[in-house]
Amino acid sequence: MKPVIVRSIAEMQKISRQQIGKIGFVPTMGYLHDGHLSLVKEAKKRSDIVVVSIYVNPAQFGPSEDLSNYPRDLNRDVDLLADLRVNYIFFPSNEEMYPDNYKTWVSVEDLTDVLCGKSRPNHFRGVTTIVTKLMNIVNPDFMFMGEKDFQQLAVLKQMGNDLNFPTEIIGCPLIREEDGLAMSSRNKYLSEEQHKQALALNKSLILAQKLFSSGIDNSEIIIERMRKLIEHTDGKIDYIEIVDPDSLQSIDKLFKGCRVLLAVYIGKTRLIDNIEITD
Amino acid sequence: MKPVIVRSIAEMQKISRQQIGKIGFVPTMGYLHDGHLSLVKEAKKRSDIVVVSIYVNPAQFGPSEDLSNYPRDLNRDVDLLADLRVNYIFFPSNEEMYPDNYKTWVSVEDLTDVLCGKSRPNHFRGVTTIVTKLMNIVNPDFMFMGEKDFQQLAVLKQMGNDLNFPTEIIGCPLIREEDGLAMSSRNKYLSEEQHKQALALNKSLILAQKLFSSGIDNSEIIIERMRKLIEHTDGKIDYIEIVDPDSLQSIDKLFKGCRVLLAVYIGKTRLIDNIEITD
Repeated sequence: MKPVIVRSIAEMQKISRQQIGKIGFVPTMGYLHDGHLSLVKEAKKRSDIVVVSIYVNPAQFGPSEDLSNYPRDLNRDVDLLADLRVNYIFFPSNEEMYPDNYKTWVSVEDLTDVLCGKSRPNHFRGVTTIVTKLMNIVNPDFMFMGEKDFQQLAVLKQMGNDLNFPTEIIGCPLIREEDGLAMSSRNKYLSEEQHKQALALNKSLILAQKLFSSGIDNSEIIIERMRKLIEHTDGKIDYIEIVDPDSLQSIDKLFKGCRVLLAVYIGKTRLIDNIEITD
Repeated sequence: MKPVIVRSIAEMQKISRQQIGKIGFVPTMGYLHDGHLSLVKEAKKRSDIVVVSIYVNPAQFGPSEDLSNYPRDLNRDVDLLADLRVNYIFFPSNEEMYPDNYKTWVSVEDLTDVLCGKSRPNHFRGVTTIVTKLMNIVNPDFMFMGEKDFQQLAVLKQMGNDLNFPTEIIGCPLIREEDGLAMSSRNKYLSEEQHKQALALNKSLILAQKLFSSGIDNSEIIIERMRKLIEHTDGKIDYIEIVDPDSLQSIDKLFKGCRVLLAVYIGKTRLIDNIEITD
């Protein structure tokens, strides 16, 4: 059975308030890949009803970013979600989500100033605002998000706790292609050649783990080695940082459980990736 | 039967999520007067369960404002609410509401830059943030607020719509003392002499209505007449404005349904009042 596609906020709110069982929610911008589908599968496991939103949120794109080109394919997305027996797809218009005279923003301090927040001003304000709206519309017991967007997950957990949302926010593992490239809808922008170049991101993260395992814990040294590896393949680095996973503040020495994150331009495509450092 | 006093967010959320009937909610800073009680009575009429919060929200006070002196009397408040058969009083601590490491703010553009927003920077950010938290905690079907704080009501309605809160926000009429002074917990700060001076606020609003009824619709002329009346009694005017009730933008000519608002210092006490202009 195909999922029910709901386009109206009022209808989605009515449906979600009538549910007796637990609601699992996966917010997406569509053009779904196995990363998204892993979240949906986790939601199916833990919830009675699964809602997936598909909405390319203009408020989280900067003026020079790829909003108009962002890949979309609703029919394919619906088929993929039907296979996983998703109950509802919330698919609103921009007019529905940001009517004329829209004025309200949710923002999180500190965590949004670092990493991707430096090169994407207002990005996280767009994310926290849309997720607030979606949680009020879908009324989920659980919300599932990938660790691919590690900073986003940290920001939304902070927001959820601070604003006392009753929704439990659950982070799920990053999913990679067979060749190691982190799954992203934006991988579609890459030529075959660029796809190969982009493998440097994951390789540099594996290098960081190897160096730590071999006894090197100096952030500066590790970042420098990663930088060389990526620049060798013509990637243009936005940032490489090694941070405390809770505060997202840079650390001088790696420890078990810290996080290495990076953003790199391959051609015009900005890709992000990250790894948790283990023993 | 006395209302149940709930101090923990988790407990209040558990209680509110277990209710089958409609929840009516009245957020207050305590030290209740007949204005608050009129909201509670309206909540009782329209809801199955009534929750009143008592919380002096530090985030809506400026550094030089009266946070530490703000009047408090929990026992008296509980008795008053018991008389009205309120079911729950939510009475959290600052540590519960703003734990260390708190980072999230909700803000509304435009509507918060005018009127009280000019002299109270961050005041409305504090209001919208605490009300977001309270709505997530209390999960109300209806929230009742007085028109005494007309700008606050407009800001919260905008926020509620923009963020798709399922709560209906209901404005209730301003309540006055027999002598015309708008009820406010801050009236406690006034000496007998100052109380008499403060009557100029309401008198100036009545004057505005009379002038309009007599055919004068020029805002400048009316504001000037109000200014003279208030200054005659030694009130120090923060603002007198005549605005569109939806946009809160100043208007040059009064119309039926527009709003006259003012803020005036009587001694060190800042009082506000407003009136809707009718025929």
